[in-house]
Formats: sequence, C-alpha cells, structure tokens
Amino acid sequence: MNQTAFFERLTVAQQKNNTFLVVGLDPIQEKIPRVVKLAEDPIFSFNKAIVDATLDLVCAYKPNIAFYEAAGLRGLAALKRTIDYIPKEIPVILDAKRGDVAHSSKAYAEAIFEHFGADATTVNPYLGIDSIEPFLNYTDRGTYLLCLTSNPGYETIQSANANGFTVFQLVAKMADSLSEQYPNIGLVVGATHPQEGIAVRKEAPDLPFLIPGIGAQQGFLEKAVRLGTMGNGTPPAIVSARAILYASSDEDFKEKARAAAIKTKKRLNTARQDDTE
Amino acid sequence: MNQTAFFERLTVAQQKNNTFLVVGLDPIQEKIPRVVKLAEDPIFSFNKAIVDATLDLVCAYKPNIAFYEAAGLRGLAALKRTIDYIPKEIPVILDAKRGDVAHSSKAYAEAIFEHFGADATTVNPYLGIDSIEPFLNYTDRGTYLLCLTSNPGYETIQSANANGFTVFQLVAKMADSLSEQYPNIGLVVGATHPQEGIAVRKEAPDLPFLIPGIGAQQGFLEKAVRLGTMGNGTPPAIVSARAILYASSDEDFKEKARAAAIKTKKRLNTARQDDTE
Repeated sequence: MNQTAFFERLTVAQQKNNTFLVVGLDPIQEKIPRVVKLAEDPIFSFNKAIVDATLDLVCAYKPNIAFYEAAGLRGLAALKRTIDYIPKEIPVILDAKRGDVAHSSKAYAEAIFEHFGADATTVNPYLGIDSIEPFLNYTDRGTYLLCLTSNPGYETIQSANANGFTVFQLVAKMADSLSEQYPNIGLVVGATHPQEGIAVRKEAPDLPFLIPGIGAQQGFLEKAVRLGTMGNGTPPAIVSARAILYASSDEDFKEKARAAAIKTKKRLNTARQDDTE
Repeated sequence: MNQTAFFERLTVAQQKNNTFLVVGLDPIQEKIPRVVKLAEDPIFSFNKAIVDATLDLVCAYKPNIAFYEAAGLRGLAALKRTIDYIPKEIPVILDAKRGDVAHSSKAYAEAIFEHFGADATTVNPYLGIDSIEPFLNYTDRGTYLLCLTSNPGYETIQSANANGFTVFQLVAKMADSLSEQYPNIGLVVGATHPQEGIAVRKEAPDLPFLIPGIGAQQGFLEKAVRLGTMGNGTPPAIVSARAILYASSDEDFKEKARAAAIKTKKRLNTARQDDTE
C-alpha cells in the first residue's frame, strides 16, 4: 500500500481510465454462472473473470463483504484473494457498513484496512463521531459515511426531521465538519433519491460521494453524475453491480459483463459531457 | 438449533442460572493472558477457559465479531469454534451491528444465523425496516436493534430531536411497532444514559433490552436492572465483558474471571431484589 491519500489514488484511476464507474463485486451464490461454480474456488474465479474483463473500464472495485460472509470462511478467504489480485492502481472500496463503540470500531478498522488491505470502506453514522474516528485515523485510506441510502426503507430514520434538518442532513453536516481534520472522509449518497441528494450536497459542498443505486433503476444515472460532480471535491465513484456481474449467466458472462460495463461507462461519460457543456 | 423462540430460551437460561448476566467474549490481542497466547489456537483457548469458568453464572454469551475479524480468518475460525463449544442451553448473542439494503442484509443474516449458528444478533437501525426484516425473518432467533448506545458520541445522531422525539425514541417506536409482527425483536439500550433509557422504555414498554456498559462504569448497574425489568416483557440481558475477561492477566485469570462474574451476578441480583421489594 503506498502512502498517497485514497482520494488522490481514486482520482488518478478515474483519469487513467476516464470514468467514474465502480464495479460492485457481489458474488451471489445462486447467480454465479454454472461454468464458474465448477472451479476449485468459485467466488474468486468469478471475481477474477469480472476483474479481467473490466479492469480498463473502472476507477475502483467495491466488494460488499456481506456476500463473502454468507459463504463462511471460504468466502472471506476468496475476498482476501480477490483484493490481493486487483492491481494496486485500481483502489478497492470494501463495503462493510461497520460502526461500533470506539475500541470495537478500532478492531473493525484493523480487519478492513490491515487484514484485508482495502483502500477504503463504508461506515454507519448511527453511533456518532467516536465510532467513526478509528477508521478516519487510517489517513491514507478512505472512509465513506452512510448518509442517504438507496433502499426503499431509508426514510423512517434518515428523513426524520431533526432540529429543522433531516437526519441525513445532520450526518452530512457531521461529515463536513469532520473533513476539516480528516480530508479522507466521503459520503454514501444513493442515486435513487435525487432531490434528497441535492439537500445532502448543500450541507457537504465538496465531499466526495460514493453513489450506489444506478444499476437497478437506470433512470437515475444522469442525475447521479450531476449530483456527484457538483462542488469542488473529488469526483464521484458511481457503482453498478448486478447489472454488470449478472448480465449473462451462461459461458459468455465475461463478454456480457464487459459489454454492460462499456455501456454504463459511456452513459456516465455522456451525462458528464452534457453536464459540463 | 431447536425451534423454540430465542427469548424463551434466554428466559429458561435466566431462570436456570438465576441471573441476567451476559459475559461479553471480546478477545483483545494485547490483553489475552500470556499463558494462553502459547496455545495452538489462543483466541479459542481463552474463550474456552472463560466459558468453563462462568457457564453456571450467565444467561448468555455475547462475542463481538469485531475482535475476531481483527485477527483475520483465524480469528473467525476461533469464533465459530467458540460458538460450537458453548452448550446449547446457553444462548449466544453474536454482536455484529450489521445492516444493509435488503438483499445484502439477507446475506449478513445467513452468515450470522446459518454459518456461525448464533442464537441472536444486533442490527443497526439507520437503513430502516427493509434492512432489518431479513434478520427478523429468522423467527427462532433474536434481533436486538441498536437504539441508545453506550458510547460518549451517541448524542450527535441518536439524541437529535426528530419530529418532537429523539431519534433513539423513533427507533424504539419502530421496534415496538415491528414487534407486533415479529415478537423476536429487542433493543440495545446502554446502561450509561439512564435518563434516556427511561425515555426508550416509554416507547417500547415490553421489549426485551440488551444492556451493555455496566462494566466500565459500575455506578449504572443498579439503574440498568431497574430499567431492564420495567414492563412485562422478557427480562434484560445485561453485559459485562472486560471487567470479567481481564480481571487478571496472569495464570490465575480463570479464577479471577469467575470471581468477577460471581461478584457482578450478586450485585445484579441484589439490585433486582431491592427493586421488587
């Protein structure tokens, strides 16, 4: 691991491959193509095939650790093997949504940054600043705080009106204020709620966004690019997982994944141009 | 795993051993006694020694997965070995504080309940109901929702005033309403904020509480018992970890851990009697 800050390394990768695209590496047992299931290490083999097929089309990979944990210790071994396999110039965001009291968060940060060697991670804000700092203390790694999530149920807590702001705005404010001391903080802002996304942007004008949710609901891709490129911070990392990984479940899954990644990359770049013109 | 509901199994263990005490199994590398570090599987050996020394004094064990993840795959193998070692009549609450969009939460629930075989777990409420239900769908297991956490930084998000309620009250209301469909839900309520704990109790009069934070700050133990036994639900599970695990770092750590557990059990029972008199 070199000592340049994560967001610098992300920017270099974005420029080299001319893209904001992040491919989510979420190996779902039932969806992995049959041809790969016969391999000695099916999860790693699947990931390797996807990485080989998309390496020049992405600025980062984002494995969600949930899918590896579901496969037990073998799944977590395949996760480590996958992270080790991805070339150093493409950062790995290990999506783990951790967060606990300080000494437990420190243990989680050790696991993610030292054991797995991830370049960045995602952290849940519910426990507050002392639960987040153990991650931020890894100054060469990135920490994206969950702010506005892409799922339908986000509203109950995140949109509650707190002291004149929504809870997700409060999280954005907290992150913005933390960024003075920790320039390695960013926010997770789902593409599925574009209006609320703009409200986040107001509270955190320059923070880098990690944006999931463009795959399943393609209509929001253009809005995600606009939202992510507002402000003067690092450009966004925009995630597609299932639409690329499972473009085909047959032997042509690598070619179909590459074709889907090319298509998404083009749409992202078109939206970016439309936006700057 | 038998099919009785988790809270029933917890109650049986509470009655059998006459205690609300839960021992947290948090193996911190630097704190594990030197004599155990020489073992072939130090984390498991440490846990086994603690379990052997306290099995008749507790109603449950609560390993926090963070400390096992910090030790990598060997740590997680030791966690599984520990859970398998604990006799079936003492439930295991795997403290994991997970929570993600529905299909990822489903993968986390599989890992915790199927791979590790835990009897119960803890879940972060920030993503809302669809992120919690995949855990609740394991109807014979327990799911404790983080509500009011024991750390100093809890206030920023949890105490924000949302629509006339605090966010933690909103979480308590959400859990109380979920409990109509899912009687296997409980709440994590830290012992360190007793006033706020009473506000949680008002919104969730009968939900079972998992109460951490009595070990480090002993003054709150009596208030934790009072808070946990209010209402008509399952009695509380009250956690002590470091004060028992690391009562000694020498060869007498087992005896000292047992003595500390006996002392805490007595204090909990005295508080309970004082309360019912």
